[in-house]
Amino acid sequence: MSFERLQDQIREKKNPTVAGLDPRLEYVPPFLLEEKVKEYGETLRAAAEAIYAYNAGLIDALCDVVPAVKPQSAFYERFGFEGVEALKRTVDYAKEKGLYVIMDAKRGDIGSTAEGYSDAYLGTVSVGGTEFAPFDCDCLTINAYLGSDGIKPFLKDCAARDRAVFALVKTSNPSSGELQNIVAGDRKVYNVVGDLLERLSGETVDKYGYTCLGAVTGATYPLDIRDLRRRLAKTFFLVPGYGAQGGKAEDVQYAFDGYGHGAIVNSSRGIICAWQKTGKEGKDFGDAARDAAVAMRDDLKKYVTIV
Amino acid sequence: MSFERLQDQIREKKNPTVAGLDPRLEYVPPFLLEEKVKEYGETLRAAAEAIYAYNAGLIDALCDVVPAVKPQSAFYERFGFEGVEALKRTVDYAKEKGLYVIMDAKRGDIGSTAEGYSDAYLGTVSVGGTEFAPFDCDCLTINAYLGSDGIKPFLKDCAARDRAVFALVKTSNPSSGELQNIVAGDRKVYNVVGDLLERLSGETVDKYGYTCLGAVTGATYPLDIRDLRRRLAKTFFLVPGYGAQGGKAEDVQYAFDGYGHGAIVNSSRGIICAWQKTGKEGKDFGDAARDAAVAMRDDLKKYVTIV
Repeated sequence: MSFERLQDQIREKKNPTVAGLDPRLEYVPPFLLEEKVKEYGETLRAAAEAIYAYNAGLIDALCDVVPAVKPQSAFYERFGFEGVEALKRTVDYAKEKGLYVIMDAKRGDIGSTAEGYSDAYLGTVSVGGTEFAPFDCDCLTINAYLGSDGIKPFLKDCAARDRAVFALVKTSNPSSGELQNIVAGDRKVYNVVGDLLERLSGETVDKYGYTCLGAVTGATYPLDIRDLRRRLAKTFFLVPGYGAQGGKAEDVQYAFDGYGHGAIVNSSRGIICAWQKTGKEGKDFGDAARDAAVAMRDDLKKYVTIV
Repeated sequence: MSFERLQDQIREKKNPTVAGLDPRLEYVPPFLLEEKVKEYGETLRAAAEAIYAYNAGLIDALCDVVPAVKPQSAFYERFGFEGVEALKRTVDYAKEKGLYVIMDAKRGDIGSTAEGYSDAYLGTVSVGGTEFAPFDCDCLTINAYLGSDGIKPFLKDCAARDRAVFALVKTSNPSSGELQNIVAGDRKVYNVVGDLLERLSGETVDKYGYTCLGAVTGATYPLDIRDLRRRLAKTFFLVPGYGAQGGKAEDVQYAFDGYGHGAIVNSSRGIICAWQKTGKEGKDFGDAARDAAVAMRDDLKKYVTIV
């Protein structure tokens, strides 16, 4: 249940890395876009098709090295519904290749609206008597600024369909402290969110000891990660900010428990743009991504031993 | 600039109401879905087409009574990319009918990811040398839990393309206080966000005195609205929670300035589901929505006089 399938995959591949699929158009090897523009003209459809081709190549190259991928929804919505259709196909293809899919959409709303997001990304909807799983991801990132009304609606699909969510707790960006580190009484705001997750997730834990409500904790704030790991024993962590944003393997080690479980580290640019450093104009984008993912795995291994 | 076009429209129609287009399938008159299921089978496409037909009917009925509509993205994403395509067509049709469109997507991310959302909903993207405005809305709701890194990226499109955003400040739901009302020093968290909006928006105001960074302030907390109105003189308010959620006209009056400017009140269910109370099986859904919008306008008029 919950993050157990992810942790199983991490152990199998001995790699607690998730590859972020953030296909800004300038990351896509030019030859891919040129091909699609030839076919579809200069259209949103061409961009969406180029993105999908890029993702499919990355997934092929990465699927036996990393346990999970994390598409960033913004970079698909940016190309309209055509982009969103490419997102859907990306999710389907990643799952076909055995990868755990974390949809990074940071959705945040309340009540039946939050249920709508849960239906879309983790659950199902019915039309007449027929059921559909519109995006059918394993996991979704959410924003808990609206409080428990914004978290609870996701629990049903987590339980019923073996899904999970990561709520933003302490994010990796420079200004994250403006709100998240405000101190009230004996707690920072990010601790209030973290504590809320532990309270709402209840007592049911998977075989590794984690619930279905995870937390986003940025690699760029290692002291905060340490604080959160001690405080949130049952909460699985998604750690962005490794690599391009400045987070190092020695920083992220604190996200893991004594068995090397309970966390996964994201890298986007570092993996998917690795082709930009090889001088081959992107023809080798898959191999370059794979090499970067292997290097990251080996880097993390210096500090994290997965039992 | 900024909210000036919206305020102009509010004055012209003497109505500070935005109609929330939240097409849960149970809100759609059954005959519309039946028609589309006949044509497309029990598919996401059928649901999306029914939603669009419902919205188009609502827009036709409401466009000379309300100044704005606010589609809630969750209820479109819920039907996959087909639903997102219906969302896009809804935006286009509302604009064709002269309505100001507030996309309620509560997006929240940082840096170039937030720029991606801005491109998608407020701005443009280019493919090769061709520019597209993927969703082309007038305004977007955002979530500022990530701090100023999550707000600044929207300012460019606001300035360049006469757009605006509403950031969540104090939301209307019961648990909103869990984070938002935490007191740190002399400020509540929601005031920290509000103050951030005033600081980041700079000194440029429109002819009504408002900037391009608005705030969401729930009708269900009239004392907080009052507090915020006094504190944030340059910030336009979007006020959800009127009607079904319990907010009353006398509660929302505090969101407006002395000229009856600076705020717009949302109603979703109260308007779009009005047909469920007329006993005509939804055949009259447009007329019922229009009557409800007129009643709301007249109700608000008791407490708010627009100069």
